[in-house]
Amino acid sequence: MQNSLGTFFTVTSFGESHGYGTGVVVDGCPAGLPLRADDIQRELERRYPPGPGTTPRREPDRVEILSGTLADHTTGAPICLMVRNKDFDDSAYEELRHRPRPGHADYTASVRYGGFNDWRGGGRFSGRITAGFVMAGAVAKRLLGRLGVEVFAHTVAIGSIKAAPLDHAVVRERAIADPLYCADHEASRRMAALITETQRAGDSLGGVIEGIALNVPAGLGEPVFATLDGELARALFAIPAVKGVEFGAGFAAAAMKGSENNDPFTIKDGKVTTVTNNAGGILGGISSGMPIVVRVAVKPVPSIAREQMTVDMREMKPATLKVTGRHDACIVPRAVPAVEAMMAIVLCDFALGAGLIPRVLR
Amino acid sequence: MQNSLGTFFTVTSFGESHGYGTGVVVDGCPAGLPLRADDIQRELERRYPPGPGTTPRREPDRVEILSGTLADHTTGAPICLMVRNKDFDDSAYEELRHRPRPGHADYTASVRYGGFNDWRGGGRFSGRITAGFVMAGAVAKRLLGRLGVEVFAHTVAIGSIKAAPLDHAVVRERAIADPLYCADHEASRRMAALITETQRAGDSLGGVIEGIALNVPAGLGEPVFATLDGELARALFAIPAVKGVEFGAGFAAAAMKGSENNDPFTIKDGKVTTVTNNAGGILGGISSGMPIVVRVAVKPVPSIAREQMTVDMREMKPATLKVTGRHDACIVPRAVPAVEAMMAIVLCDFALGAGLIPRVLR
Amino acid sequence: MQNSLGTFFTVTSFGESHGYGTGVVVDGCPAGLPLRADDIQRELERRYPPGPGTTPRREPDRVEILSGTLADHTTGAPICLMVRNKDFDDSAYEELRHRPRPGHADYTASVRYGGFNDWRGGGRFSGRITAGFVMAGAVAKRLLGRLGVEVFAHTVAIGSIKAAPLDHAVVRERAIADPLYCADHEASRRMAALITETQRAGDSLGGVIEGIALNVPAGLGEPVFATLDGELARALFAIPAVKGVEFGAGFAAAAMKGSENNDPFTIKDGKVTTVTNNAGGILGGISSGMPIVVRVAVKPVPSIAREQMTVDMREMKPATLKVTGRHDACIVPRAVPAVEAMMAIVLCDFALGAGLIPRVLR
Amino acid sequence: MQNSLGTFFTVTSFGESHGYGTGVVVDGCPAGLPLRADDIQRELERRYPPGPGTTPRREPDRVEILSGTLADHTTGAPICLMVRNKDFDDSAYEELRHRPRPGHADYTASVRYGGFNDWRGGGRFSGRITAGFVMAGAVAKRLLGRLGVEVFAHTVAIGSIKAAPLDHAVVRERAIADPLYCADHEASRRMAALITETQRAGDSLGGVIEGIALNVPAGLGEPVFATLDGELARALFAIPAVKGVEFGAGFAAAAMKGSENNDPFTIKDGKVTTVTNNAGGILGGISSGMPIVVRVAVKPVPSIAREQMTVDMREMKPATLKVTGRHDACIVPRAVPAVEAMMAIVLCDFALGAGLIPRVLR
Repeated sequence: MQNSLGTFFTVTSFGESHGYGTGVVVDGCPAGLPLRADDIQRELERRYPPGPGTTPRREPDRVEILSGTLADHTTGAPICLMVRNKDFDDSAYEELRHRPRPGHADYTASVRYGGFNDWRGGGRFSGRITAGFVMAGAVAKRLLGRLGVEVFAHTVAIGSIKAAPLDHAVVRERAIADPLYCADHEASRRMAALITETQRAGDSLGGVIEGIALNVPAGLGEPVFATLDGELARALFAIPAVKGVEFGAGFAAAAMKGSENNDPFTIKDGKVTTVTNNAGGILGGISSGMPIVVRVAVKPVPSIAREQMTVDMREMKPATLKVTGRHDACIVPRAVPAVEAMMAIVLCDFALGAGLIPRVLR
Repeated sequence: MQNSLGTFFTVTSFGESHGYGTGVVVDGCPAGLPLRADDIQRELERRYPPGPGTTPRREPDRVEILSGTLADHTTGAPICLMVRNKDFDDSAYEELRHRPRPGHADYTASVRYGGFNDWRGGGRFSGRITAGFVMAGAVAKRLLGRLGVEVFAHTVAIGSIKAAPLDHAVVRERAIADPLYCADHEASRRMAALITETQRAGDSLGGVIEGIALNVPAGLGEPVFATLDGELARALFAIPAVKGVEFGAGFAAAAMKGSENNDPFTIKDGKVTTVTNNAGGILGGISSGMPIVVRVAVKPVPSIAREQMTVDMREMKPATLKVTGRHDACIVPRAVPAVEAMMAIVLCDFALGAGLIPRVLR
Repeated sequence: MQNSLGTFFTVTSFGESHGYGTGVVVDGCPAGLPLRADDIQRELERRYPPGPGTTPRREPDRVEILSGTLADHTTGAPICLMVRNKDFDDSAYEELRHRPRPGHADYTASVRYGGFNDWRGGGRFSGRITAGFVMAGAVAKRLLGRLGVEVFAHTVAIGSIKAAPLDHAVVRERAIADPLYCADHEASRRMAALITETQRAGDSLGGVIEGIALNVPAGLGEPVFATLDGELARALFAIPAVKGVEFGAGFAAAAMKGSENNDPFTIKDGKVTTVTNNAGGILGGISSGMPIVVRVAVKPVPSIAREQMTVDMREMKPATLKVTGRHDACIVPRAVPAVEAMMAIVLCDFALGAGLIPRVLR
Repeated sequence: MQNSLGTFFTVTSFGESHGYGTGVVVDGCPAGLPLRADDIQRELERRYPPGPGTTPRREPDRVEILSGTLADHTTGAPICLMVRNKDFDDSAYEELRHRPRPGHADYTASVRYGGFNDWRGGGRFSGRITAGFVMAGAVAKRLLGRLGVEVFAHTVAIGSIKAAPLDHAVVRERAIADPLYCADHEASRRMAALITETQRAGDSLGGVIEGIALNVPAGLGEPVFATLDGELARALFAIPAVKGVEFGAGFAAAAMKGSENNDPFTIKDGKVTTVTNNAGGILGGISSGMPIVVRVAVKPVPSIAREQMTVDMREMKPATLKVTGRHDACIVPRAVPAVEAMMAIVLCDFALGAGLIPRVLR
């Protein structure tokens, strides 16, 4: 079940970058959820933020609901969601077929699938498959809305430029309107300039995205092997280019003392809460009721215009490569909705497993 | 299946810190593997490194093989491995029952299990459950040995003290002999001093562990949701206190340019390899044939001798807490074998799934 | 994962009788398998045998391969297969919405999904979903062909008319050409007459299908909970109308003595085999190398033209019902390819799990 | 996960007939369930009914609870339950090692595990592993008790002697007190005589067991691949010697007309119900609210005292075999508690998945 995620809210991904289309089957969605194509379409379009550095490829990306709804409500049956591929150009990739792009999955996919993998545009390893994640995430977000859970993500670093830390409420309001989904608009402007400059130099950038989930009830998580943090991490590593995941203080916690890192408990509005949130809302693999805070490291886009060292896999000898197709110079902003989607999918899975969302919605 | 990990090599964990014992059932191990208690015992004893900062609790920790072997060979049936608990003292924990320790799972476990959880010594959330991981990991390591795959881990930071980067071969040789499992012996001495000093001050330390797997064949991993990195990350988050996981350059990659981060391909000894290994041996969720390199952030031990702010959960009012039981001031070295175990378990699962290890060994 | 079947060869089903279409996502198929739409189309058309008693609804049922192949070979990525629905008429079902048909899933689906289920034509519970099973089965059969495993099924009873027992080789040859997929052509003629007569009387018939798999290697099966017989049974119960599953002598074995039922071992062509096959090719949940023989009881079609007692679920009072839509009087022959498909899918799952089919085919 | 069953209430089996012991890990049991060893012990002892035909081997079979409870309540952590093996004699089996018993798993296990399987007393394929099923079933029954669901089974046939059909209420009362768990006491006497006579003749008998679950709420089941009937069937095939499973009218339904087999709906006490129960309480894979009725065919015990044809697997030549160990002549009554256990485990899994049993019990 390598292309399926989740036990209760199960997302099965299919499709390729340059094939017929890409999609998901969402299994386990409760019956009775109002769901129209438009609800999903809105999320899908967030994958094309207006900032610089993004590929000129523009799919119309119209979601089609192929099963699982009747009269604009979910039926409890699997929901198949698809977008077709329309605008693509294979020719730019022909050269890549036998010369794997450094930093990309071309080589490992070729080994794993014996060269039969769809190599066109990265095939199954393209960022385009996150369109499916985002469609499934749109369903998950609607379900979480029933619990009052809110999931959002924002760009906290691009290259070496870091956004200033801001309150969650401020981030939620400002990030969505920013062309790079960065809540610190001043930093965003500098990031945009850096992207433009780097793109001109034929190079690319990575960055860091922070995902936040508010109002997650305490008690979600299944130790010891299906922990909330472990499952979130696994899901986030499904997004191409993610190389690290940390919760709360994360790697910084490693250098702290216990007396600094421990979040003191207190009572607020009659409920147990913590004064700080170095734990990122998770203790022992279980949600604490504080905001879930996770950060993911996104590596720079491997497809760059500069000449690179590679090998010719047929002739088994060194070769060079200059990627000429259309590519993003920085996919960090485009990955923001994917981070939200993966978080929403995992949280929805746990919420259904815990019985917090009923199997029939009224 | 919240307490089970793996599809082909499935580890089911049971037991508590202060109950009868703790153990695992290992399902899916091929038949015909030579396996004696001693093979497991050696790994188990590595959980008690001689360095400072470790709890005075000393379990004899004798592994018992309750099923799955005959005449010192695995039979293909589930292998139940257990260690009994002998040396424990409940009294120190009585106070904690209603006053959750900051940074620990006491509070979230109480919410999740409605107060029925075994609260004695952290119960199911104690580091003691990693004894089971290490026993299962010992079996996994032996299987991986058939493929020539070698897994080891070492301490790369404690508090703010970092070990110098060293070649994998050097690390493999030096780390195992060090009282803190740190390959940089000079740094290790400073770490030891820091631990002693911090412990005296009633405080605790975290750190960073690096896990390395050598000779992993290219082509292991199941995109898109059962990626090698995603599954490793999920498994590593099962170790109590882990707050972050990164592969290769990890979070540092986020600040690099594509031209810096991309690992150029080249040919060496007739095989495709990369000049650098910023990818940590994984591209597109699939192993590249380069060493797998993963780092985990371990937060400081939450149980500290200092007075801390907490709440009384019965009376729902603020309270203070001073943890008086026996606790490690720094569990980083003790978590090193657990990191190895989780890596070995996951790699073994993939190797079995890929058919690299036969179902019957001769 | 309620709509997914299989661990290694995973089939996820979606679609409804009267919605956009019905399909499957096949995950885990090795790369490099030659696969064209025509290969699947042939199997799909076997769902419309020429015998009497079958619904006049005639879908063109053209398979579409939406993902997972390139240049007529599988890529190792998920294969999405779909047929669209074209010829349907909702009006006949309007009355059924609140008056559940006795013997059908109308009532239980309404309870399970709170009335949000797609009730048109049985929706998700229609025999039409077996089109997806058959498409996935077509892929499985091609993979099993690599091992020399052959799967076929035939009608052994319709109503009280039983086919004479025949050798597997004879069955394989004769059943496929028969309008009711019955190898005993004389019995088939009587079955056809009975179907026609029963249909005229506004009633319906059930029957028994036998599935056979030849050349299954000994040693397939995973005791104790993933036995070959248990997994086959579970898969076969996914076919609507199946009420019983038995292997080899099955229920008849219950009345036999050990000395009669035990299949004596002997040596044939240098291999261990059994003189008889009361075990149906499975001992202890593991294949014995003898033919796998399974029989499924198919209940009579619940939709009949006669007036029946039911209830009005809105008004919660007794009501009557006369089903006027187009319905099969006997779906036994149409279920024959579905039995083959489920057997092929399960055997393929085990063969992949045992490493008998490589992950890349050349 | 071949030795694990269930998604929400997960039972992992371990142990062998002649090893250290046999047991289960029960994962997913809600916290707060009162549970003492005695509650399990009572069920365990039902595996030794006083009727004739049972092996003289008498294990004390004292359950040990190794984890998952505190102060006689479940904690929500995995519950490890074990019985040790004490009274066994290997010598009788030595001859069998290379001469597989016809009808037993000796041969297939040897192929599957390359001869490394624990062959002593059938090892992992012995009926003794059902002790673990029954222990897990005891926990499941207690959970189902919270919903008012009652599960019981009874002997309906031994050899060719059939019990008269009786009302469920009568069966529930009379079967438990009968030495063969047969509710028709007159038939039971004849069965006992037949067993004694058959045993004297060095032969063995099979039979049929019927399992019944009362008060199962309508709406349990997850079409299309995790149907209630499919999951029950799979679980029941885990019991050694089961060769067929049928629900309600089962195979008899295949010979009925639709007008005979359809269960008319009616209203009773303000609830929808059916006049008859040919469906065995399941329509479309979902419970209807009527009693769940399932029958399993149990083949005759393969170990018989008569000389049988077999092969010597080392020398690959024909041989004869006379099984001399201690064996049941008819295990049907002993399998009755196992049928109940498997039904209870599966129903519990569905009830937890549907949120009918909360995660914390008060």
